Amino acid sequence: MNHEPEQQPKGKKLHGEEVAKHNNDKDCWVIIHGRVYDVTEFKDEHPGGKNIILRYAGKDATETYDPIHPPDTLDKYLEKDKHLGEVDMNTIEKEQLDEDPDEQDRQERVRRMPVLEQCYNLMDFEAVARRVMKKTAWAYYSSGADDEITMRENHSAYHKIWFRPRILMDVENIDLSTTMLGTPVSIPFYVTATALGKLGNPEGEVVLTRGAHKHNVIQMIPTLASCSFDEICDAKKDGQIQWLQLYVNKDRAITKRIVQHAEKRGCKGLFITVDAPQLGRREKDMRSKFQDVGSNVQDTGGDNVDRSQGAARAISSFIDPSLNWKDIPWFLSITKMPVLLKGVQRVEDVIKAIECGVHGVVLSNHGGRQLDFARSGIEVLAEVMPVLRERAWENRIEIYVDGGIRRATDMIKALCLGAKGVGIGRPFLYAMSAYGLPGVDRAMQLLKDEMEMNMRLIGCSSVDQLNPTFVDTRGLSMHSAAVPSDTLGLGVYDPLVGPREKAKL
Amino acid sequence: MNHEPEQQPKGKKLHGEEVAKHNNDKDCWVIIHGRVYDVTEFKDEHPGGKNIILRYAGKDATETYDPIHPPDTLDKYLEKDKHLGEVDMNTIEKEQLDEDPDEQDRQERVRRMPVLEQCYNLMDFEAVARRVMKKTAWAYYSSGADDEITMRENHSAYHKIWFRPRILMDVENIDLSTTMLGTPVSIPFYVTATALGKLGNPEGEVVLTRGAHKHNVIQMIPTLASCSFDEICDAKKDGQIQWLQLYVNKDRAITKRIVQHAEKRGCKGLFITVDAPQLGRREKDMRSKFQDVGSNVQDTGGDNVDRSQGAARAISSFIDPSLNWKDIPWFLSITKMPVLLKGVQRVEDVIKAIECGVHGVVLSNHGGRQLDFARSGIEVLAEVMPVLRERAWENRIEIYVDGGIRRATDMIKALCLGAKGVGIGRPFLYAMSAYGLPGVDRAMQLLKDEMEMNMRLIGCSSVDQLNPTFVDTRGLSMHSAAVPSDTLGLGVYDPLVGPREKAKL
Amino acid sequence: MNHEPEQQPKGKKLHGEEVAKHNNDKDCWVIIHGRVYDVTEFKDEHPGGKNIILRYAGKDATETYDPIHPPDTLDKYLEKDKHLGEVDMNTIEKEQLDEDPDEQDRQERVRRMPVLEQCYNLMDFEAVARRVMKKTAWAYYSSGADDEITMRENHSAYHKIWFRPRILMDVENIDLSTTMLGTPVSIPFYVTATALGKLGNPEGEVVLTRGAHKHNVIQMIPTLASCSFDEICDAKKDGQIQWLQLYVNKDRAITKRIVQHAEKRGCKGLFITVDAPQLGRREKDMRSKFQDVGSNVQDTGGDNVDRSQGAARAISSFIDPSLNWKDIPWFLSITKMPVLLKGVQRVEDVIKAIECGVHGVVLSNHGGRQLDFARSGIEVLAEVMPVLRERAWENRIEIYVDGGIRRATDMIKALCLGAKGVGIGRPFLYAMSAYGLPGVDRAMQLLKDEMEMNMRLIGCSSVDQLNPTFVDTRGLSMHSAAVPSDTLGLGVYDPLVGPREKAKL
Amino acid sequence: MNHEPEQQPKGKKLHGEEVAKHNNDKDCWVIIHGRVYDVTEFKDEHPGGKNIILRYAGKDATETYDPIHPPDTLDKYLEKDKHLGEVDMNTIEKEQLDEDPDEQDRQERVRRMPVLEQCYNLMDFEAVARRVMKKTAWAYYSSGADDEITMRENHSAYHKIWFRPRILMDVENIDLSTTMLGTPVSIPFYVTATALGKLGNPEGEVVLTRGAHKHNVIQMIPTLASCSFDEICDAKKDGQIQWLQLYVNKDRAITKRIVQHAEKRGCKGLFITVDAPQLGRREKDMRSKFQDVGSNVQDTGGDNVDRSQGAARAISSFIDPSLNWKDIPWFLSITKMPVLLKGVQRVEDVIKAIECGVHGVVLSNHGGRQLDFARSGIEVLAEVMPVLRERAWENRIEIYVDGGIRRATDMIKALCLGAKGVGIGRPFLYAMSAYGLPGVDRAMQLLKDEMEMNMRLIGCSSVDQLNPTFVDTRGLSMHSAAVPSDTLGLGVYDPLVGPREKAKL
Repeated sequence: MNHEPEQQPKGKKLHGEEVAKHNNDKDCWVIIHGRVYDVTEFKDEHPGGKNIILRYAGKDATETYDPIHPPDTLDKYLEKDKHLGEVDMNTIEKEQLDEDPDEQDRQERVRRMPVLEQCYNLMDFEAVARRVMKKTAWAYYSSGADDEITMRENHSAYHKIWFRPRILMDVENIDLSTTMLGTPVSIPFYVTATALGKLGNPEGEVVLTRGAHKHNVIQMIPTLASCSFDEICDAKKDGQIQWLQLYVNKDRAITKRIVQHAEKRGCKGLFITVDAPQLGRREKDMRSKFQDVGSNVQDTGGDNVDRSQGAARAISSFIDPSLNWKDIPWFLSITKMPVLLKGVQRVEDVIKAIECGVHGVVLSNHGGRQLDFARSGIEVLAEVMPVLRERAWENRIEIYVDGGIRRATDMIKALCLGAKGVGIGRPFLYAMSAYGLPGVDRAMQLLKDEMEMNMRLIGCSSVDQLNPTFVDTRGLSMHSAAVPSDTLGLGVYDPLVGPREKAKL
Repeated sequence: MNHEPEQQPKGKKLHGEEVAKHNNDKDCWVIIHGRVYDVTEFKDEHPGGKNIILRYAGKDATETYDPIHPPDTLDKYLEKDKHLGEVDMNTIEKEQLDEDPDEQDRQERVRRMPVLEQCYNLMDFEAVARRVMKKTAWAYYSSGADDEITMRENHSAYHKIWFRPRILMDVENIDLSTTMLGTPVSIPFYVTATALGKLGNPEGEVVLTRGAHKHNVIQMIPTLASCSFDEICDAKKDGQIQWLQLYVNKDRAITKRIVQHAEKRGCKGLFITVDAPQLGRREKDMRSKFQDVGSNVQDTGGDNVDRSQGAARAISSFIDPSLNWKDIPWFLSITKMPVLLKGVQRVEDVIKAIECGVHGVVLSNHGGRQLDFARSGIEVLAEVMPVLRERAWENRIEIYVDGGIRRATDMIKALCLGAKGVGIGRPFLYAMSAYGLPGVDRAMQLLKDEMEMNMRLIGCSSVDQLNPTFVDTRGLSMHSAAVPSDTLGLGVYDPLVGPREKAKL
Repeated sequence: MNHEPEQQPKGKKLHGEEVAKHNNDKDCWVIIHGRVYDVTEFKDEHPGGKNIILRYAGKDATETYDPIHPPDTLDKYLEKDKHLGEVDMNTIEKEQLDEDPDEQDRQERVRRMPVLEQCYNLMDFEAVARRVMKKTAWAYYSSGADDEITMRENHSAYHKIWFRPRILMDVENIDLSTTMLGTPVSIPFYVTATALGKLGNPEGEVVLTRGAHKHNVIQMIPTLASCSFDEICDAKKDGQIQWLQLYVNKDRAITKRIVQHAEKRGCKGLFITVDAPQLGRREKDMRSKFQDVGSNVQDTGGDNVDRSQGAARAISSFIDPSLNWKDIPWFLSITKMPVLLKGVQRVEDVIKAIECGVHGVVLSNHGGRQLDFARSGIEVLAEVMPVLRERAWENRIEIYVDGGIRRATDMIKALCLGAKGVGIGRPFLYAMSAYGLPGVDRAMQLLKDEMEMNMRLIGCSSVDQLNPTFVDTRGLSMHSAAVPSDTLGLGVYDPLVGPREKAKL
Repeated sequence: MNHEPEQQPKGKKLHGEEVAKHNNDKDCWVIIHGRVYDVTEFKDEHPGGKNIILRYAGKDATETYDPIHPPDTLDKYLEKDKHLGEVDMNTIEKEQLDEDPDEQDRQERVRRMPVLEQCYNLMDFEAVARRVMKKTAWAYYSSGADDEITMRENHSAYHKIWFRPRILMDVENIDLSTTMLGTPVSIPFYVTATALGKLGNPEGEVVLTRGAHKHNVIQMIPTLASCSFDEICDAKKDGQIQWLQLYVNKDRAITKRIVQHAEKRGCKGLFITVDAPQLGRREKDMRSKFQDVGSNVQDTGGDNVDRSQGAARAISSFIDPSLNWKDIPWFLSITKMPVLLKGVQRVEDVIKAIECGVHGVVLSNHGGRQLDFARSGIEVLAEVMPVLRERAWENRIEIYVDGGIRRATDMIKALCLGAKGVGIGRPFLYAMSAYGLPGVDRAMQLLKDEMEMNMRLIGCSSVDQLNPTFVDTRGLSMHSAAVPSDTLGLGVYDPLVGPREKAKL
């Protein structure tokens, strides 16, 4: 029975006992940041599913709510008459958390974590983050689609590309700078959009904003940020430039409002995500949440009778799976920002994109989080550029690549093959999660140091000199999986070993 | 000395002590479901060898007998005068089983087995089944030929095929349905024939029948089912469709009876197995049975002097190794069901099959259980279709693939390359063994969920849109085995490690 | 000082104490099978080096001597005046062997070794042999050249060849028989020559003779057998056929005598080893002997100042490194046996061989014991046959392959590619070492069982039907070594795991 | 405050207490070999960074200083007025070193290290060195750039090249000799330049000089040797020949002096390093030094605000990153020695080098210590030679290869592909570090033994007979990385195992 909540008299706070009564499917209140909300109806439309809401029915949900919702979420998505006013926090019964041995172990690892100077490359931040992050946060960031083959291939593909460096070039002074969509940057990478920054760091995406400013690179603001869009914009300084990553809403009015607001706030590029008509299933993430249903943004509810319908509705509430090529002219019409497609995965679509008049594409597979066995961006780039060059179209758009970039050599390879720049996401999340802003700063500086050195070693003093003759890509296109191992044969082979100790004679 | 059994007076039950006397090679009775049978002569023709019968000479063999024989076996294969009538079960001495510590461990694993909702993909059922199934049952289902290279290659081959997804297609509504031999199905897979279902679940193949009905897919009924053919037919509902998998008997009259009976019972497809003129040796299975000779259907009796002859006779008793192309017109003449060849493995034979007038082929290597180093069905498909398209024959038959399909992406790859649908076998056996019907239900639902999502992500809203441009198969044909490992070199290499803990300074 | 041994009066035995005095470099006697020999001078020309002799100076060397010298060695190679006569064995002081814990462990493994019926394939004998053989014997048999890459590649290469079986052939009756150099055999393999059979079994190579007889296959008698040539000939029965493997001696008179003796004793093929102008270094073997210098046939004496010279002399004493093409006509002139070259490794040399008039070649790399990174015989075969077919020379000689054959499928692959038959060596040594003649018998029977089954499954009822269309060799020629592993990346990857136990909720 | 040091009266030694006062950034003295130096100003220009100097401010730095600076360093680089004279070593307070458990373990490993005769190949020395060297010394020698992919690929690339040996050639006498730049050598390798020899052995590079003399091979003297150039020259004997490896200094006068001095001292080849405009980052080395900042030659000072600038300055002080093709004629003008470029990495640059008039090139990637994903020298050679042969330029220069050579077979492969000889570096460092001169001697002898044997086995009696028909390089160009592993699939696969023990029946 759906009971009508009484509106709270101004100035009078609700009592915790009263809130605690509304603790079930038919009558469900929750407390967030000291305010009470009636989510009885809303919970069925909650993109993360109603189960996670019901777990906090009648209780304070702030700690779980915070990392995965921008602060303006409730104002935007819950009608005003469901905002029931403040609660007297002293009247809330504290949940008695059992001592969680896993969490105690994690705290011990945090106490003993390496100092920042022990991180010498981007993988090192991941190594530290894996040990010190909360399990569910780690699972959300680190997981990929299905068997995570594409996620791993993204970096692995760079290992199939080898250098053909030239010697005896004057490389005393190295200029790493370039431009992206007209914006000068100090080095050809940008911070790409990644969701839910507060899972890793209580301040969220603004930490990345500050890091990007320090190193004069562009940040792409994610639609699914933990911070609100305006918070992230407010965090920029001087002439700092940001871009907007966009999930297109079914309600184009909402989308139009978002885009035009971003343009007004100074965003200089609109990146429409086209590889996620449905948010991917990530089993590592799902498995980690089976016990702790904290950040359940992608639960497809496998155990639920009306699951598929529920998931479809949930997703359709903020991402439009019917988005298609016919929509592109409209985007070009509502903004003066350059419009780019993020998630292009084959040459035919790059050509279509150019014909559509967009300003660029990001060859990307969403960090391996959507379609498993999608090819790496770098492999698609190697397929795309020769075709464009044949048509003399290589300068008609800017082409970016993301996914798997961990070393400056990866970046150089992408530029040699024709990319204007590369997007880097998870590594900065890990650096931020483990060490906050100093981590992000060091991660970016390490990339610059590596880049300067490797530009010298490849024999180029500026990024415009990079071209395909510097790379050997003969191994790139081969998706080889070895013949399954000869289990019996390997089992009987007596391997050679080197000498260890003095022989007894 | 072969002594003539006295016929039992009606109504009078035999006494256990009497039965127990007939306990040797020359005079051998066994009890099954409370009835006594004289198998003195029959045991030498027993397809599973006489040893396993002798182990139960004079005793109750029901528990071992049940999973590997359909209920009508004795009626069909043992002459009536060897049916000696009922035994008074109270007079049977119970065998005192030693406590088997392996079995106790297994029971403990069963008690702690994951709940069904913890299974997120088809491999997960296998992971659970491996832990909770009886060792011999697991060995029978999971084993393959020789070094099990082909068995593993079957899935691995799919990993050499990568996607070329297209973007910005309207994928709001996804239609997974198709037809198979004219039957509409909800998704392009069928439950392929697998033997001895009761090894994994006491109800046997009817569990699969119920699962197939729930999800509106076709079940192929195996010749070597644990349930009788009629039991499996009886289990179907409404307009549910089944096919028949056929091992061809030397006695064509038996074969004809089986086929025509199936047609009468409503089967809509006849799949003649052509890759098993002799049932394969599976060493994992043989090794597991060396101690427990329970389900010895394929013992080639390596320790037996007249072994090869014995095995040949055993096999020739129900599979005809002389079956050949000249027999095909006869099959077409005895049934109106579409006739398909199951186990075709090269393009030359697909062409022959078309010329013969059959209605389809299954590119299959029998789940890797017959010829090791047979290529995967998907690789054969990639060889077959271009040749058929060249002749414009690609629509003259329906082509199916089985072996190694574990993910919806595998299914999509097969359809992109030209398959009408795919057969899935072991995963449903594992789901059924671990969780019964709910397991099968969830396994099928997971496939549907994966399929719907991945159709969206590849940019297709119905299965007829799938075509070869969506896949990159450049790596598929290469059976590479790396140069043997550099044992000494790997032994001395000091691998890089990330930071773990704070350095002591 | 080299002191002149007194000749022993007839009938009077030497006393152990007397013998024990001759225990040094300058005066060195040894006892073998109760007889005393003065090896003071001989030891410097001993092919196995003098150190191993000096270890037994003045003592009984029988146990170490036996496995590595045919019984007629001393008669052949030590002048008669160094044969000092019998010693009274009661006067010999027994060496008090310390309890060797390794040997005790081995004895325990022997006690618990699997019964023969637990071996289901040729690798299984190797698995047992590795556990129950003496360490030095195992090291001698199992070792290969340098990094043992070629040794392992020999089998691995077969894994790059996959089948294209045909279906619906009448395969009721399978005929495995063929002929080799005119001799009818029951199955297309022969027992190839391997040295020092008594290391594994006290009876030595005659065990293989008996096994070959039982299964009607040919045995190739090794020059370096532990049994004498005549012992091995004497062991044959009925019309059993043997071949002779020949290391060519610098002294052609000796070689001529050996060849003509073999012909007289009924040998039907002369296989001249051409891949061993110098016996290979095998480091696993050398390392195992550093402590126990027992069977030191290949010590290159790395620690010895005049080492290389010493080794060269040692080797030149029985193998002629100057053997070359000009010598071949001479071999054809001294015998009516067919002459074959064993160890041919490239197509140019096969052509030369044909032009020389020899009757066949064995494509072989000496079991990976000579030149590391020599290609596998099967790969060379795939290179050779198309060239011969182009010239229509494919029937001018018989081509054999050895190395790495472990499964009937390997044999079938070689035959498909054009080999007349295959040689198998180590597997029979392992079977003989672990189980004696019954082991060899079972190993051969398993090959026959596998062969019959796999012939059926590939769709051929006799070996002459095998041809290249049955195999897919596209992967064969590629010697790929993966990019070195991404140590840091693999170190941080958090692998997916299946469900194990019920989640705590 | 920078205080002016008083000059020491002749004959009077400084007191330790006085020195100890100058222990800070503004006033910094250090003691080396009993003499005091004021490095207050110099430390900011110290190529290894000032931190390592400050650690010894006011103290005795000899032990750390010695291995990484030639004895004449201070005379060359520190102005004379900063040489403050002798200190009375009795007045120096001994630093009380804590017992370092790692060092105790190492000492224990040294006590139990294998005897030299247990090393059978070049990898074995590395195995021993890894166990007995000091951790920082091991890290300096064994580390490579970034992920050390190129470092490992260097040897691994040889594994993709296989032999096509010929048979029946007279190989009784093998001649390994050749010439390099006109100098006759006994075998086609030279000892290539490697830095900081005293880290591994207190005598440093002169040990290699002695080894090279003993085996009649050429030593290339490194610019960054621990011994002074003249010490290394002085160590040569008879007609022994040395070459000079040169890092080009910004101050060409210094470079000219070095080159002409070398020529005067008898050097017969000038190898200009062209692959190191900046010294590489080696993370394993950096990580090992985080605690022990001993030999900090490549610290890029990641933790330092002005780090990159500091590092750039440090490096520019002795290596000129502006070196380019226009400088080459000048080198040719200042010396009569043959001039070669060391570190050439693509065919275009080999052609340029020939056009420039240099006498040779070394195809090298600096042992994998500079640019990761640079290709191996042997792969570049396979790219270079066909192009040169097409132009008939293959004899216009001498081409050498270094990196990853560990076996004589590697050397033979390089010669087959067209190299005049190969450079070997680390293996001799390891041999020297573990066993001193006897180690180097044995390492070289092992190479000769392997070479003689393998020349026989490939069928060539002298190195000029080696040519491309002896090698199969089809796998060489493919930089393959397998599809990422199927974690779930591998996790559920139940591998085949051989029999271990008697079955319980």
